[in-house]
Amino acid sequence: MDVDTLIDQSLQDAVAVISANPCPSRLAEALRYTVFPGGARVRPKLVLAVASACSDTLPVLAPSAAVAVEFLHCASLVQDDLRCFDDAQTRRGKPSVHVAFDERLAILASDALIVAAFDAVAANSLADAQRRLNMTCMLSRQVGAVHGITAGQAWECEEVIDTDAYHRAKTGSLFAAATQAGAVAAGADMTPWARTGECIGAAYQIADDLHDVLGCESQIGKPVNVDATHGRPNAVAELGAAAAVSKLKGLIEEVIDTIPDCKNAERFVKTVRHEADRFFPKEIARSAA
Amino acid sequence: MDVDTLIDQSLQDAVAVISANPCPSRLAEALRYTVFPGGARVRPKLVLAVASACSDTLPVLAPSAAVAVEFLHCASLVQDDLRCFDDAQTRRGKPSVHVAFDERLAILASDALIVAAFDAVAANSLADAQRRLNMTCMLSRQVGAVHGITAGQAWECEEVIDTDAYHRAKTGSLFAAATQAGAVAAGADMTPWARTGECIGAAYQIADDLHDVLGCESQIGKPVNVDATHGRPNAVAELGAAAAVSKLKGLIEEVIDTIPDCKNAERFVKTVRHEADRFFPKEIARSAA
Repeated sequence: MDVDTLIDQSLQDAVAVISANPCPSRLAEALRYTVFPGGARVRPKLVLAVASACSDTLPVLAPSAAVAVEFLHCASLVQDDLRCFDDAQTRRGKPSVHVAFDERLAILASDALIVAAFDAVAANSLADAQRRLNMTCMLSRQVGAVHGITAGQAWECEEVIDTDAYHRAKTGSLFAAATQAGAVAAGADMTPWARTGECIGAAYQIADDLHDVLGCESQIGKPVNVDATHGRPNAVAELGAAAAVSKLKGLIEEVIDTIPDCKNAERFVKTVRHEADRFFPKEIARSAA
Repeated sequence: MDVDTLIDQSLQDAVAVISANPCPSRLAEALRYTVFPGGARVRPKLVLAVASACSDTLPVLAPSAAVAVEFLHCASLVQDDLRCFDDAQTRRGKPSVHVAFDERLAILASDALIVAAFDAVAANSLADAQRRLNMTCMLSRQVGAVHGITAGQAWECEEVIDTDAYHRAKTGSLFAAATQAGAVAAGADMTPWARTGECIGAAYQIADDLHDVLGCESQIGKPVNVDATHGRPNAVAELGAAAAVSKLKGLIEEVIDTIPDCKNAERFVKTVRHEADRFFPKEIARSAA
């Protein structure tokens, strides 16, 4: 089974579990609407790529981890789009969840996805108990209030924003969760993989900033110029487009430098370069130059 | 250490962890504000009472479970009070979280508490790994989208409400989580304890309905007549006050009948009767008659 199919099938199965009878029907619909169709599924792919780089000997846990990370990502998007945060009308090329349903169902869908992320990992009784516990704890740290996504979103509520902490928490933490989850699934030491995930997150953030300034809504499936509208930090606004592109290129090399010793490191390097080209197409680089 | 002190100390420690530097300062404040001062702490007391009834041999996990259940309860209250749900201005005798802070911080505080609930249990490295995993899975089911609190709140978004499923999910599920968590902490079979928790939840729901209709805001610390305002099912409205009181008394006896075999069952029966008298004072029974 190729990676895209494995991810889609794992997500389909997991959504079927959480939207099964007697789940109230509108919540079940909202859950399906939130998870499908997906975006690029960058984070679950990263989980599987790291597990494979570490020559996963227990591949049963990696797909659960991929589901968990994607569920947490989807939950954060639903919340980002709420009226009290970005008030975004579209996401992944269709009305955002609170527009298609309502605010209540958007909040409940995000709750359900957060809870289901932990369940996906902890309840996988075929996998090693210690790996499941380690992964549960790591995930809770990476989405929590201190360093995690919740902290990232909460920086937007502060009068003075610590830009580094903001980006690291809002974007970097879930990428670090993805790389660490892949390592834990494979029974490898997750500690050195955090840095790789954070660098990927930082690169992704700059690419996202470039898309926000230089992209168009029909192409990226969500509104553009959101950072300027909300007075948020944006690398293009801070550095200019050309310097942002050069910083992005530097970060991709840094990602590769940080990859810990692992059996299939070369294949992982290839995947990183391939995904970087795919997510950051040459047209954007040209228009930035 | 008495139970109240143990619960307060465990919650203080757990809130200190999730609001530690670099947690953004307003989120840290919102978290403390949400958890302290508490209400009656009925659910964490129930966790400890069941663990003690099962003669807990590993008391290190029960306080973590008590924290987890109270965090999940606090998160559900914050969400209940949001403008898009009950739009309640007060809770526990002070402005509700979204009023004291804002909608964003209320949503983020509830996210952080949900995540921290899983962390409290999973990361307790002094406790047995299998018990931690069992408890994590049980908690995720009891707060999730199918039978859990999330489902309970989502029933309010349906055109036709299944009243039984609504009450069981919205109130019963967290009481079942509390009794089951106590059993798991003690290494006992959690299965038969679910029914006891559900009966306690059903009794508590009727008592709450009676308070909503017959109580006053200054006494219960939150608005009254909320069910009528939102067109929600209420046992007093359905059965009349006297029949509701008699149903409540029947449920308390049912709770006692369902208590599974355990070493300290008698002490647990006493606790149930004591808490029932405390939560359902004679004045309310008299004014219902």
